Amino acid sequence: MKRNIKLTISYDGTNYSGFQIQDNGSTIQEELEKAISRIEKSPVKIIGAGRTDAGVHALGQVVNFYSLSSIPTERFLPALNSILPHDIRILQVEEVDEDFHARFNAQGKIYCYTLDCRSVPSVFWRLYSVHTSHTINVMKIKQGAALLEGKHHYGAFCATGSTVKTFVRIIQEIKLEQSEQIVKIYFKGNGFLYNMVRIMVGTLLEVGKGRIEPETIKDILESKDRKQAGPTAPAKGLCLVKVIY
Amino acid sequence: MKRNIKLTISYDGTNYSGFQIQDNGSTIQEELEKAISRIEKSPVKIIGAGRTDAGVHALGQVVNFYSLSSIPTERFLPALNSILPHDIRILQVEEVDEDFHARFNAQGKIYCYTLDCRSVPSVFWRLYSVHTSHTINVMKIKQGAALLEGKHHYGAFCATGSTVKTFVRIIQEIKLEQSEQIVKIYFKGNGFLYNMVRIMVGTLLEVGKGRIEPETIKDILESKDRKQAGPTAPAKGLCLVKVIY
Repeated sequence: MKRNIKLTISYDGTNYSGFQIQDNGSTIQEELEKAISRIEKSPVKIIGAGRTDAGVHALGQVVNFYSLSSIPTERFLPALNSILPHDIRILQVEEVDEDFHARFNAQGKIYCYTLDCRSVPSVFWRLYSVHTSHTINVMKIKQGAALLEGKHHYGAFCATGSTVKTFVRIIQEIKLEQSEQIVKIYFKGNGFLYNMVRIMVGTLLEVGKGRIEPETIKDILESKDRKQAGPTAPAKGLCLVKVIY
Repeated sequence: MKRNIKLTISYDGTNYSGFQIQDNGSTIQEELEKAISRIEKSPVKIIGAGRTDAGVHALGQVVNFYSLSSIPTERFLPALNSILPHDIRILQVEEVDEDFHARFNAQGKIYCYTLDCRSVPSVFWRLYSVHTSHTINVMKIKQGAALLEGKHHYGAFCATGSTVKTFVRIIQEIKLEQSEQIVKIYFKGNGFLYNMVRIMVGTLLEVGKGRIEPETIKDILESKDRKQAGPTAPAKGLCLVKVIY
């Protein structure tokens, strides 16, 4: 009997060339398919909720695959974790409806971007955050972030050359958390364009550094022009926290 | 003019064979001496507050060295950090009294040991904590830890073969902090024997798992016998937080 299995996965993206299988470099998808195929004793393809770029991390990536084996569902977690490299961990395994599709059924996602604002970067955060030696004004970032919330055409916050049907997305919430000098910016939205979070962070950092006024975010949105927004923030600060179904 | 320079240093010990210079493998001391010598333009030896073993981390290791150059004291921090590998960071540089000695003047140290008690280990803590899949009773660990505080002969909590004048040390405080399922155990003492924190943690884990009653800690202390205590917990969970002067 065919079972549709949903996996919730965490990974440290530092040593991977992103989620999606490619010719050069190891990927999360490749490691997962190798491990699942070994347990299933036949080649298995997985469906991911979304790609993450090289160096991007995940706390709650979701994939699904069809199992043709008779392995009890609760055995997948320990079996896969015993095979997978230590920087990829299966957090949860569930049997789901036959027509559940990790990508098409996703209602939204939560991403987190981490900034290390200490004068000297923390060695323990160096792979999971981006250090900014510039003093940043968190209040201004919050003001700018509020203007990014809502339903907008996010063309200015999408990597050029992206082919999508529409640049309109809804960002339900952008939330800042600060603990000691680690600032985390959470983005909750119904979908994200290519590099969207990293360009929003790059732009908000310009706001935090005082190079752009918070209100300018409005003009940048209206311009629909990638060149008006700030630089794309580095991949290693980004983490896919949750996929919402 | 000779200046005595005190450095406060943080490092991720994952990729090092410990603090002290040795024939095989790179060490923190070697990297520091290489970097300082390059800036001083002459060979420099440093004095460390204490060694840390291979894989042990530091948030606040302290070393001192004598500078014969004319480099302004405040220039050492950016200059050294621009040369050092990213997993070693100078946090503070001060000119101190000529007779300040990082090891002899140390009044005490604070160590932290981190346990990851999630059912599946966090990929982000995997290099800085030790995972325990066993359910642990934090209350029992606290009870056991309280019995380790005070002035005691810690012979049972010292790696065998250690040659020291006395096994008597004072532990001023053992404190537990729990956030989500990460448990941090802080040890503040006037000095620590070889592997002492790791053996105390290994023993407290036995208490937390219910294999030893908290009160047994008293008997273990009195036995002065290494074999009565628990195993030596792995190096990667240990971090030298602070050297007290």
